[in-house]
Amino acid sequence: MEHRPVKVFGWAARDPSGVLSPFKFSRRTTREHDVQFKVLYCGICHSDLHAAKNDWGFSKYPLVPGHEIVGVVTRVGSKVRKVKVGDKVGVGCLVGSCRECDQCVNNLENYCPQLILTYNSVDTDGTMTYGGYSNMMVADEHFIIRWPENLPPHVGAPLLCAGTTTYSALRYYGLDKPGLHIGVVGLGGLGHVAVKFAKAFGTQVTVISTSVGKKKEAIETVGADAFVVSREPEEMQAAAGSLDGIIDTVSAHHPIEPLLSLLKPHGKMVMVGAPAKPLELPALSIIMARRTVAGSMIGGLKETQEMIDFAAEHNVLPDVEIISMNYVNKAMERLERGDVKYRFVIDIGNTLKEE
Amino acid sequence: MEHRPVKVFGWAARDPSGVLSPFKFSRRTTREHDVQFKVLYCGICHSDLHAAKNDWGFSKYPLVPGHEIVGVVTRVGSKVRKVKVGDKVGVGCLVGSCRECDQCVNNLENYCPQLILTYNSVDTDGTMTYGGYSNMMVADEHFIIRWPENLPPHVGAPLLCAGTTTYSALRYYGLDKPGLHIGVVGLGGLGHVAVKFAKAFGTQVTVISTSVGKKKEAIETVGADAFVVSREPEEMQAAAGSLDGIIDTVSAHHPIEPLLSLLKPHGKMVMVGAPAKPLELPALSIIMARRTVAGSMIGGLKETQEMIDFAAEHNVLPDVEIISMNYVNKAMERLERGDVKYRFVIDIGNTLKEE
Repeated sequence: MEHRPVKVFGWAARDPSGVLSPFKFSRRTTREHDVQFKVLYCGICHSDLHAAKNDWGFSKYPLVPGHEIVGVVTRVGSKVRKVKVGDKVGVGCLVGSCRECDQCVNNLENYCPQLILTYNSVDTDGTMTYGGYSNMMVADEHFIIRWPENLPPHVGAPLLCAGTTTYSALRYYGLDKPGLHIGVVGLGGLGHVAVKFAKAFGTQVTVISTSVGKKKEAIETVGADAFVVSREPEEMQAAAGSLDGIIDTVSAHHPIEPLLSLLKPHGKMVMVGAPAKPLELPALSIIMARRTVAGSMIGGLKETQEMIDFAAEHNVLPDVEIISMNYVNKAMERLERGDVKYRFVIDIGNTLKEE
Repeated sequence: MEHRPVKVFGWAARDPSGVLSPFKFSRRTTREHDVQFKVLYCGICHSDLHAAKNDWGFSKYPLVPGHEIVGVVTRVGSKVRKVKVGDKVGVGCLVGSCRECDQCVNNLENYCPQLILTYNSVDTDGTMTYGGYSNMMVADEHFIIRWPENLPPHVGAPLLCAGTTTYSALRYYGLDKPGLHIGVVGLGGLGHVAVKFAKAFGTQVTVISTSVGKKKEAIETVGADAFVVSREPEEMQAAAGSLDGIIDTVSAHHPIEPLLSLLKPHGKMVMVGAPAKPLELPALSIIMARRTVAGSMIGGLKETQEMIDFAAEHNVLPDVEIISMNYVNKAMERLERGDVKYRFVIDIGNTLKEE
């Protein structure tokens, strides 16, 4: 393990309580292909909460979360061509991959078996990766996103995970064609961005939610065309067979057969949220109308850049609540009970102080 | 309900015992778009057994099964252009649809909500449809398949259901490209035809089965390239991540997660068998490698004709055991325990006698 001489500070979870507290650590010096940047903003993804609390069983502590990171370049390696000092940049869920496998060669680094995640992964030098709840980041330029001039970084940060996850799912499964009718299940961090991309693609969008209380906001603020309460059999029945595709963002266990019944023949339902318990999938419900249940996980680097440029051009802006670093534990509690519209973003640049 | 004056005889199930016995009934006179034909051969599909025993709960007795029917035209309506008296023809699973909906207009009559099945369906005149375990059939020419000269009818009959089901699934999901590696789960009536079509498309084919006893035959007779015993963890592990697509033909309940693990990233598993109990689908297994679980049900008329012409041209011939009509109950018993290689075909023309 090489010596990591660059002093950094951030906030880390220390145990499965998930409580975050100030943490001093170090990062590597800038290698020839590396970009070092000062972190300005970092979104709070729901998976930050899962990781902090070890919900998936593979968290290593101390754990510095954060993979929706925007910053400004402070140093570049000698061979870096993508960005220069002073540029705004982003880092999403990945900071490394093998760069040689079929997936990497096809710009699908997110499906590389040797994927290195932005935090809680083992880096090539044997150290753990630490995320964006910190004052400084360093990453190979391949994993750096050029930040568009006209995209406000505090608002755009969540696009680096929530944006690419929903954008890639809609694109890959052909749910991005004007005139299609798309359903979005769950109106949270992922769901509200899915609505905005689907609208930007020219599709008609129906939000499907257990909570009728979200209806007004879904339509008036987020921009959906319609809203269906999944617990109301009559509303579900009225919408049966009406959707070309569904993006299901819900990671709590939920029945999928009622959702499948909303699809037209040949319709596709794409899971981007991952309930821990297996889904119950009645085979006849996919056979009889040639339906598809599929998955999608974040996006590759090329597509992430395409997504962020598309968002800037089409004004796809997440709805965010900007918080200070000290508020992070309170924000995690609120996130756990769904009390956020729709993404917290930590103002790292102005509020993270070395203690 | 119109008068149906044409006397016909066949074999019918009378109750959920599923036991078949001789049965006299009638069919309509030949309308202007109708084709009447003498039945020569009829395959025994596993769904004939399910229907005879009311396994799905919607059987109406007496029930005359059979939807893999080949015969010779005896009479045509005044406006029929597709075939003439003396031609060989086939009828598969469908004898009617609305002809106007999106599905019908796009040659996907099999997904028409007003689909009329070849047996145990209510026809447009209010009578029940009766299948091919009978001496004579009549159907609108739209639902008639022209039988290729060089395709032996006694061998080719099962293609009308088993063939189109597997052909359509492979084609629609893009699993028909030379060089792909395709898995076929279950080596029965559907599975063995799936292997043959997949081979004809130029793919590499691995059969996945619970029964090691089928290995030699799968490779030497049916033509698979490889065989994996799904109950052997080491064999499954060795094949992990190797398949571009899977056609799952098994209608008994079975775990699908081990099968999904055989798929490469972006791989597709297509269900054509329908277990009664819901499948257990772990969301992460489709999300992390962007996999798809999908369904497919038989095929439309245009595609069925394309399939049968392709089979004739590429010598895709089911492996059949020809039986006499009197043997049908014994054949059903053997089918129930999987004791057939791989499809029974009833020699209706030579062995069905009016009693």
